[in-house]
Order: sequence, then C-alpha cells, then structure tokens
Amino acid sequence: MDQAQTLNVGIVGGTGYTGAELLRLLGTHPHCRVGAITSRQEAGRRVDELFPQMRGRLDLTFTEPTLDSLADCDCVFFATPHAAAMHFVPELLDAGKRVIDLSADFRLRDLDVWAEWYGQPHACPERVEQAVYGLPELNRAALGSAALVACPGCYPTSIILGFAPLLEAGVVDTTRLIADAKTGVSGAGKSLKTPFLFGEMAESFKAYGVGGHRHLPEIRQALADLAKVEVGVTFMPHLVPMVRGIHSTLYAQLGAAEIDLQALYETRYAKEPFVDVMPAGSAPETRSVRGANDCRLAVHRPSSDTVVVLSVIDNLVKGASGQAIQCMNLMYGWPETRGLEVPALLP
Amino acid sequence: MDQAQTLNVGIVGGTGYTGAELLRLLGTHPHCRVGAITSRQEAGRRVDELFPQMRGRLDLTFTEPTLDSLADCDCVFFATPHAAAMHFVPELLDAGKRVIDLSADFRLRDLDVWAEWYGQPHACPERVEQAVYGLPELNRAALGSAALVACPGCYPTSIILGFAPLLEAGVVDTTRLIADAKTGVSGAGKSLKTPFLFGEMAESFKAYGVGGHRHLPEIRQALADLAKVEVGVTFMPHLVPMVRGIHSTLYAQLGAAEIDLQALYETRYAKEPFVDVMPAGSAPETRSVRGANDCRLAVHRPSSDTVVVLSVIDNLVKGASGQAIQCMNLMYGWPETRGLEVPALLP
Amino acid sequence: MDQAQTLNVGIVGGTGYTGAELLRLLGTHPHCRVGAITSRQEAGRRVDELFPQMRGRLDLTFTEPTLDSLADCDCVFFATPHAAAMHFVPELLDAGKRVIDLSADFRLRDLDVWAEWYGQPHACPERVEQAVYGLPELNRAALGSAALVACPGCYPTSIILGFAPLLEAGVVDTTRLIADAKTGVSGAGKSLKTPFLFGEMAESFKAYGVGGHRHLPEIRQALADLAKVEVGVTFMPHLVPMVRGIHSTLYAQLGAAEIDLQALYETRYAKEPFVDVMPAGSAPETRSVRGANDCRLAVHRPSSDTVVVLSVIDNLVKGASGQAIQCMNLMYGWPETRGLEVPALLP
Amino acid sequence: MDQAQTLNVGIVGGTGYTGAELLRLLGTHPHCRVGAITSRQEAGRRVDELFPQMRGRLDLTFTEPTLDSLADCDCVFFATPHAAAMHFVPELLDAGKRVIDLSADFRLRDLDVWAEWYGQPHACPERVEQAVYGLPELNRAALGSAALVACPGCYPTSIILGFAPLLEAGVVDTTRLIADAKTGVSGAGKSLKTPFLFGEMAESFKAYGVGGHRHLPEIRQALADLAKVEVGVTFMPHLVPMVRGIHSTLYAQLGAAEIDLQALYETRYAKEPFVDVMPAGSAPETRSVRGANDCRLAVHRPSSDTVVVLSVIDNLVKGASGQAIQCMNLMYGWPETRGLEVPALLP
Repeated sequence: MDQAQTLNVGIVGGTGYTGAELLRLLGTHPHCRVGAITSRQEAGRRVDELFPQMRGRLDLTFTEPTLDSLADCDCVFFATPHAAAMHFVPELLDAGKRVIDLSADFRLRDLDVWAEWYGQPHACPERVEQAVYGLPELNRAALGSAALVACPGCYPTSIILGFAPLLEAGVVDTTRLIADAKTGVSGAGKSLKTPFLFGEMAESFKAYGVGGHRHLPEIRQALADLAKVEVGVTFMPHLVPMVRGIHSTLYAQLGAAEIDLQALYETRYAKEPFVDVMPAGSAPETRSVRGANDCRLAVHRPSSDTVVVLSVIDNLVKGASGQAIQCMNLMYGWPETRGLEVPALLP
Repeated sequence: MDQAQTLNVGIVGGTGYTGAELLRLLGTHPHCRVGAITSRQEAGRRVDELFPQMRGRLDLTFTEPTLDSLADCDCVFFATPHAAAMHFVPELLDAGKRVIDLSADFRLRDLDVWAEWYGQPHACPERVEQAVYGLPELNRAALGSAALVACPGCYPTSIILGFAPLLEAGVVDTTRLIADAKTGVSGAGKSLKTPFLFGEMAESFKAYGVGGHRHLPEIRQALADLAKVEVGVTFMPHLVPMVRGIHSTLYAQLGAAEIDLQALYETRYAKEPFVDVMPAGSAPETRSVRGANDCRLAVHRPSSDTVVVLSVIDNLVKGASGQAIQCMNLMYGWPETRGLEVPALLP
Repeated sequence: MDQAQTLNVGIVGGTGYTGAELLRLLGTHPHCRVGAITSRQEAGRRVDELFPQMRGRLDLTFTEPTLDSLADCDCVFFATPHAAAMHFVPELLDAGKRVIDLSADFRLRDLDVWAEWYGQPHACPERVEQAVYGLPELNRAALGSAALVACPGCYPTSIILGFAPLLEAGVVDTTRLIADAKTGVSGAGKSLKTPFLFGEMAESFKAYGVGGHRHLPEIRQALADLAKVEVGVTFMPHLVPMVRGIHSTLYAQLGAAEIDLQALYETRYAKEPFVDVMPAGSAPETRSVRGANDCRLAVHRPSSDTVVVLSVIDNLVKGASGQAIQCMNLMYGWPETRGLEVPALLP
Repeated sequence: MDQAQTLNVGIVGGTGYTGAELLRLLGTHPHCRVGAITSRQEAGRRVDELFPQMRGRLDLTFTEPTLDSLADCDCVFFATPHAAAMHFVPELLDAGKRVIDLSADFRLRDLDVWAEWYGQPHACPERVEQAVYGLPELNRAALGSAALVACPGCYPTSIILGFAPLLEAGVVDTTRLIADAKTGVSGAGKSLKTPFLFGEMAESFKAYGVGGHRHLPEIRQALADLAKVEVGVTFMPHLVPMVRGIHSTLYAQLGAAEIDLQALYETRYAKEPFVDVMPAGSAPETRSVRGANDCRLAVHRPSSDTVVVLSVIDNLVKGASGQAIQCMNLMYGWPETRGLEVPALLP
C-alpha cells in the first residue's frame, strides 16, 4: 500500500477496554483512520459519550455489526468476547477485507481443544488453518501476507516471549516449566462480576482460575512449537489490585550446559523494537510499560540449575491492541513501530 | 521559526515527575528535540537508567546545570523545586535563550507576598515583571513574544479555568468563593516524606495544608485579575489515594441576574482546544484527562443562588508539563495542540 | 436487661457489607449472640461460604426472612436495601421484637419527601412517627426506650456531627451551608454497576449524584432540627478510590460574634465516647477511624468570617453497623462502648 | 501465672507498623496492659500524637529504651529493626524479664550465615542458642518455658506453614522447591525510600530483592528442619500495590506415591486454631486475613506430579505482632487465641 494513502479501518465490538485502546492508538497513527466502530448494544450512540476521553478527538457513532456498516473498511479489528468473531469473520474475508482478531477464536490449531475450553464447537474450522498467529517476534514473515491474524492472549504474549530464548536454545527441562503470572484487572474487561468490584479487589491479592485458565492451551501450543516437543507447563494466574499490567515470573531447570543467559537473551532480541532485555540484576516494573507496546524482560539465575525470567507487558497494549497494530503495520508494509512510539505513562 | 527547523530544548532539573513528563511529550513533538537535561545529583548518569520507560527512546545523559551544558539549547524548561530557577534564569535570558519555568519563582507579581510564602527574598525581582503568566486561555496574546514564561501551578490552573467565566461575567459574589480541591500525590513530586509513602496514603483520604497552601496567593492574584477587584477565596486542598489528577469543586453565590450558566461556559470556551465544557448534568472523572492536556468542566446549579463548577485536569500535564509545551507552541508560532494530541490513557 | 443474660439478635439481609460488619462486631460483643441471619438469595448456604473471614468463628446458615426464622431473636437489625424493611418491620414489632433499621425507611418524618426520593409511597406510615433517629450524640435519651430505631445514613452522620456545635450555638448563616463530602466505595455496597468496577474506579476521582443525592433530605431535616429553622445546604458527594471512609469538608459563614471555635467543639463533645475533637490545626485521616466507631473532627477558620470543619468516619461503622450497635447498647442499658472498643486498623 | 493478674508488658521500638499492631491487639487483651513503649527518636512525645487511632484509648508517652523505663515490665516485645535487639536483650534477660523479639536477631542458628546476611558479627551469640523459634504450629511445646522467643519473619511464616505437611510427609522432591511470594508494602515498615512512595508503587507490580532476600536463610533453615535434610529452594519476592497481606504460591514436585493432598493438609492442621485449610478448589484472598491472626491455605494438583499450595497471612499479624501475642499466650499458659479473636476486617 502506498504510504500516502490512508487505510480505512473498522472495529467490531468497540465498547470494551481493548476497543478503547485501539481508538487511542489508531487516533494518532499516520496511515489509518477509524471509519466504523460497531456495537450491538450501543448502536446509534456517539462514541465519545461512552469514552469521554475522545471528546473533540473523534466524530463517530456506534453502528450495528454488519457487512454494510463496515463496507468502506479495508481492515477490520475484532475486539469482541470469544466465540463472536468466528461467526462474522468469514463473511468479511469473503468480501476481501483483512481481519485482525484480538479474541481467542483463531488462536488454537487443535479445534477439539478449542471446543473443550470454550464449551462449543468452532463455527468456521476451515478458517482457523488460514489464520496467522500474531506474535511478530516469532512469526514476522508470515504476517506480511496474512488475511486473518489471530492476536495472542495477554498472558501467552508475556510468557512466550519470556521462555522463547530458553526453548529455542534447548537448555531447559521442557517437562517442568512454571509460569506464575500476575495481572491487573483490565484483562477481564468490564465484566460485571462481584469479584471485580473495587470494594472486593482493592487491598487484596489472590490466585484465580486455579481449576484451569483458558490461556493454558494457547501457552502449551506456542511453547511446544518453540521446543519442538510437547511441554509440561504449570500456569498459575493471580489478580493484582491494579488496572493495567502483567508480570510473569517464569521458572525452569537448566541442564548441564554452560550458558551465558544474559547474552542469550540480548542476542535473541537484539533487533526487536518492542522487546527490551534489561541489564543483569534488574526487576522490571509493570508501570514501565503502561500504555506502551513494550515487553521488558530480565533473566536471573538464583542457583546454578535454576533460571528465573521476569517478563512485563501492558495487557491492553502489547497484550492486545498495541500488538494488533504492530501486526497491521507488518501486514501493510509500514515500519513496525508506526503509531506505537509513545513511551509508557509513568508515574 | 521555520517549521522545518528543529528546536533544541533543554530541561533543567529533569529527575522529577514533571521532568519525566516533558521527556514523554517532547519525545514525540515533531518540531523539538531534547538536547540537554540537567541534574546536579544525577550528572553523568544515563537518563534511561532513572527512567526505564525511555530505554531505546532517548540516548542522553544528565549533565550539570551550567550555561555550558545548555549552550546549544534555544529554549530551556525549568522543572526544578521552587527558589532554584530564579538563581539561574537571568543568566540564560542574557544568553538569548527563552525560558519556560514550571516552578513558582515567577508567578507572583507582589514580591513581598512571594517572600512571605517562600521564606526568602526573591533573587531577581527585575525579571518577575517581564515574566508572562503561562495560562494560554487567559493570556494567549502575550505568550507569542515571551522570553520568560511562568507556568501556573496545578491547583491554580484547575481553579482559574473553572471560575473564569463567572468572574468575567460578573455574576457571582466575589467575596465568598470556595475551592474545595483534591489532588493525586504526584503533585508532591518524589518528596521523601512519610505521609507520601504507599503504606500511609493508600485507602485513606485527608485534607492537608490546612494552615495555608502556597498556591493560595497565586489563586488570589489570578481571580482578582479576572474579577478586577480583590476576591475572598477559601482554598482547601485534599490528598486522594491516586497518582495523577486534580478535581476542584468550586462554589459561588449567584446574584439576582437571570443567566444560562451552561451557555456562558460553552461560549467562553468554544474555541479553546484544551478546555472541554461537558454536557449539562455531567460529572467529569479525573481519569478522563490522565496523560492528556485537557481540562474538563461541568457547571451545576443545585439551588437558584448557588453555582457549583467541577474542574478536572492531570496535574502533571495541563497542570505542568503539557501546559508548558502548549506555551512553547504559542511562543514559536506552532499550532497550539502540536505534540499534545494524544488522548487520555483510560482505563 | 440483666448483663449476665445474652441477647439473641437477628440480622435481616445479611449478605452485604453492613451485614458483614454486624457479624464482625457482634461476634465479640459480650452480651449478644447472632441467632439468625436471613437472605432470600442465599438461604440454605453457610454464612462462612460467603464470608470466608468468619470460617471457624461462626456456625450459621442463611435463612429465609420470615417471622419464624427470627422467632428466637429479641432484637433484629435490618441491613437491607431501602424500601425493604418497611414491609417486614411492623410484623416484627407486633411480635414484640425491637428493631434497628440501618436502611433509609424510617429516617424521614415527611412522608411526601420520602415518597419523592424513593419513588414509591411509604408502606407503613404509622410506624415512622414511632421511630427514633439513631444518632446517640443528639438523641441519647430517646433511645433507651425505643422499639424502632432508624439509623442515620453515613453522609448525614458525618455532616450532622460536624455542623451540630455551630448550629446549636447559632453562630453561622444557616442559609448557606456547604457540605463537600467524599466517600469510599463501600457505601454503595456490592451493587453490580460498571462505575464501581475496580477498572473504572482505580486512579480516578469524581463527583456523583450531582442531580441530587438521597441523603440530602435527611441532612436537611437533621440540620433544621438543630438550627430550629429551615436551612439552605449544598451537598456535593464525591467518590474516592478507596473502600472505607467518609471525609466531609463543611463550610459556613460566621456571623459577627467573637467565638472560640475550638473550645465550642471541645465542650460540646467532651463527654462523647465516639466523637474526637482533634487539636487545633489538625487534618484527620479517614484511615484513623477505619474499622472503628469513631468520628474525628477538626475545626478551622481560614478567614475571620469562614469556618471549615473536617469530619471523618468509617461509613460502615459509625456510618452504619457500629452506630447501630451503639444504639443497641443504649436500648439495653449497657455501657455505650461495649463491643466497640477496638481501635482503627492502621495502616 | 494467675489469670486474674495482669501482665505488664513493654514494647521496645514502638513507632513502626508492628509496634502499632502490638498496641492495637494488646489494648483489648484481657490479661495484659502496656506499661511502657520506647523510642529513641520520639521519647517524650505522647503515643497518640503519632498514632491518632489510639486517642482516648491509650494514655502513654514514648520513653528512652533503657532498663529503667522497662523496670515494671515482665515481658518485653522488640519491634525494632534488625541488629538492635541483640544489643539490649541480654540485659533484659539478666534482669529476669521474658523477651519476644519480632526482629531477625535470634532467628538463625548459624551465626556465620547471620553475619553474612546482616553485614556484621552477632553481638550476643550465646543467647541465640537459647532462643525459641516462635512458630507455635511447629514449636508449641518449647514456647511454654521460653525466656527468649525469636518470632519468624512474615515470608517464612507463610512459606513454612504452606510446605510443612508436604515435607513432614516426605512426598515431594526437596531439591526443587519454589516459593513465589507477593507482599503488601507494610512489610517494609515506614522506610523512607523512593520505591515505597505512593507515586512509585501505585498501579505497578514488580519483583524485588532478586539478588537475594534476607528471609531466604531463615526459610532454608526451617524447611531443612522439616525435611530433615538440606533443601533446594528458590524464593522470589514481589511487591503488590497494597498495604497488608502476603500471598505465597508454592510449587513442588510430587514423587510416585498415591496421596490425598487435601486430607494431608486437613489432618495436619485439624487442631490448629489459626491455620485454616480451605475446601478443595479454593483460592484464598489476602483480605480474608486482614487484621486477623489467621493463615489460610489451599492445596492444588494441576498435574499428577505437581503440587501448588496457596498460603495467605496478614504480614503484620500472623507474620509479626499477632504471632508474637500467640507466643506470649503460650508462654504464660493462657488460651492460645486470647486477644486474637477478632476476624478479618473485610472489605
């Protein structure tokens, strides 16, 4: 696409937090303009009524999610809950649009596993194969020609980027990986559930999803791809009394080989614009990536046979909307960082 | 200045929160580059060691605050504590640089009042007169040619913009103005004081500065300018367990005149890019301006003779660094919103 | 009642925050035991399943709210939403039980006003007259023989105690009282509404109820009783990102009279066990009353004709369940502080 | 000791958070009264000036930490920073007092290890041997006659109680234990350090002490005692944006043996008044123990050979002052729960 042209993008399901982030980031992207944003529930309402931060910055009204209302859009983002995109995406692809799905619908290749975790059969199995997993650091080449991108979940993004150098180098026991992950509440969106009330969450910390979290099969699939063998991984998510941010603390057992872990990580990510390997001895804070598309990593070796990796992202940016835009940049041949230059908002 | 040229700017005292905000905002400003940033304490240290959010985005080292280290800078921002700028600014002005001071040193015209509140005589009285008060909504014309700009305090910004339409229209009793203001803690910078510890502030709310806050004389001076008469104002600041944001709740008594307050506010601010008069019945949230240079106002009339104005800003942006950049844009003839387009980060 | 005897108490509507607080405080009250706790929704479920903090401390199951299930209770607390108690209280009174209602049903004497604010006619007007307003500091004598106590709202408690000395002494202009009040979110209970989600409330501050808050008529009624004349009061509530605590900042205009405000307050509350007049110059923190039945006050005079009173309570304790127990102590002739001795949990 | 008598207790170093907690809990303990509280820095100042929550509840003034000022105290608590108690304790023991030390001075038996972690030689090695480790669940018998009690650290308490059943039963690989722990900031006391400011901590999460935390040798010592063999343990502490609470997530590898983990835990702690084994499938919240002396545990088996234990305490109560009082109860033959009956403050 000619850089002088402007891409007309649409957002399906734009009332949640990832929808708001898409608006925030696309609003200053020099090659895009948001032409349509849909919401069954809010159709007809001005977008800036729901999102006052956009007052004076966006003159748009929610529409019904139909092919018609997205007719002028070349590229469509899905910021819907799971099991929605799969019913609408085929129609859009058939109409020649490219689709970037932030939901879970096209992430898992094994559709039986998908059906098991999402409680229903997949609605368009034939499209799953075609989907490109939208983690540029692993999958950059395939994104350029992708018609359908399945953006990774927030936990998987932080965990995969953290484990990748170890698995690619084959230096850890792949049967005993542990991911102790902590998230701010925005990962749950605006779900109206009692545990997400301020009065219930403030000044408290807990594990959740202890019976099994939907991101586990996605993590397993990606780690197995990296290790080229099935992996054993324990994934334990926790809820932090904060809004944004994921911190994954990753544990693995090192084999006998001598290895300079700091060098391994720095080399692996030397050319990645959004992965920052911190100096030895660091402990990255989630706020250092708040609002930014960065993933910061630190690697530690508390004993000779143990490696601990600390990995932080903003779940709504590198874990969702920012990564989706990074994918779009690759799909359209723009510089990968375009529209994603703003650093974290700190404090 | 030719828009094609790049302005070299310096920051004096760049280790605090307003310094970090200047870096964040100037980093994506198309007409500027930060050429120097000084800190007596951190001289010699890389800036991104102190501010990890700037890793990969800024290749700069703190220097000593000397004329030499700022030699290449055309415009210098002061993000120092009070009573520092006044010792260094004259030298810079004499060297032909333009100065934007975010501290309190040049805000008060009455130097006896300044001396009383800051506990020392002013070091360069002759420059005070020359300073332009950097509130563009009141003072736009004078900023174009300003050599020295005194940026308003954060509380004053929110309070003055909130009261201005009432005082300009002469419709309230100027002897009984009340400003009940609430701030996040970042207004205090990184002061290492027990009351600002997380363990002391979290889950608690209190008034502070009940014996008199340094922003009071500034508020009085500006409101008197608007009312063209001395005003009686009670200013009561409070500390909210949050980082960013000021919410001022303003009370005044209306005189007999029939007046459409909503229309008064909408008309007054119709052309202001950064002042948003919300629809009747609104209650602006501080988060709706987090990270943005916006001031949102709502005006209410709970009884026929009482007006209540709600005014929110981000104390570090419209209350400090953002407003300073807005002033710079006016000083150099650039569009006033340049570099300040990004909407609030929400949630 | 003989102090050696144990009073059997019941709680109607015990699944919310005030219900939990009643359980916490009554659990260590030496003269009571909780014999029944009802909940239509949770009937049949163990109480400690909903409230894990009671595991091992309470062996009780929620029951249906019927006369039967409360048959053994001498005294019944209502911790229900408004407009529920009025349908059940008459039956309990007829059965000879004493009732302490924490909801709004019996607070307003003017039933037209009640109907207007609560959107329905009152279901038992004849009982309203009989109800004693449960603010011991104003109404101690009447509580001893009360069969039905209407506990004050949380905002009214903090505002009335703050204004009382001024109004009783007749030293302020009663036509221009201002109450700028700030509350933690637990005042809204566990209401499943989007604005109360952690992701919506954290790191933000706002006014709410700007069109009129249901506590306003109660405040008006009580202040008029104190002033012995109708009062003009502006009440502006705000939401603080914290769980517990109310901070009311009260403004009034002083008349000509010389008056020592600090002495006025200290004298007025000298014998009150739960009202603490702080030393001159103080700013009470809400955390200093967290979990305790205290109200702390500080009185200031920023200018000769202006008085500002700062008043803090824990909305769930002195603003609800603690005050209800204080009333119970008076009703049964026990020492007023019994079961309420524990100081604030700080930090 | 006769239960009718009152024990006179002293607190050395009473200005911090654990000192405040001792005051809160001892204030309603039926067998104690606080006779002296010392602070070098605050000597001469009323205690309720520093702790307004104690106004009207405690009539005491800080004194110098001398034998004289503690002359009337039979039992002395140390709430001092590390390396202070060891200089004063011997004198008090010689004077016939019993001492309960909340600091780290008497926790480690290996004094070389102590010297290495605390950067100085131990000042009274001969007393270390005599100290009883104050974890009643492991050490109840020895506490009855103890003259000197070394209360465990907060992290060790949560981790030891969590691992104990597994290690005692010998069912896990002791060379690969992992403790991923998360704490509220009150564990750091009122340390005036930049990272503990509200503006730095709010809305962020991070690991810390990644180079090695002082609680590690204590954890190693206790786990080795349980396992009867040296253990390999990785301990990774994290800082949560909240005030109180520790959540330890513990990982271990199960051997071949068939074992009912839920039954193992329930049996082990069946008689412990302060250890609550939650039902299978639970995830305890830190707020469910806020202000209470409880430890809540949940045990999970995400795969056949992996066990995950979730363990929560209030770091200032079961992790410090509450546990110290529990020890005192055992030392004086009182019921172990005396003065510790109050449930968590929730919300």
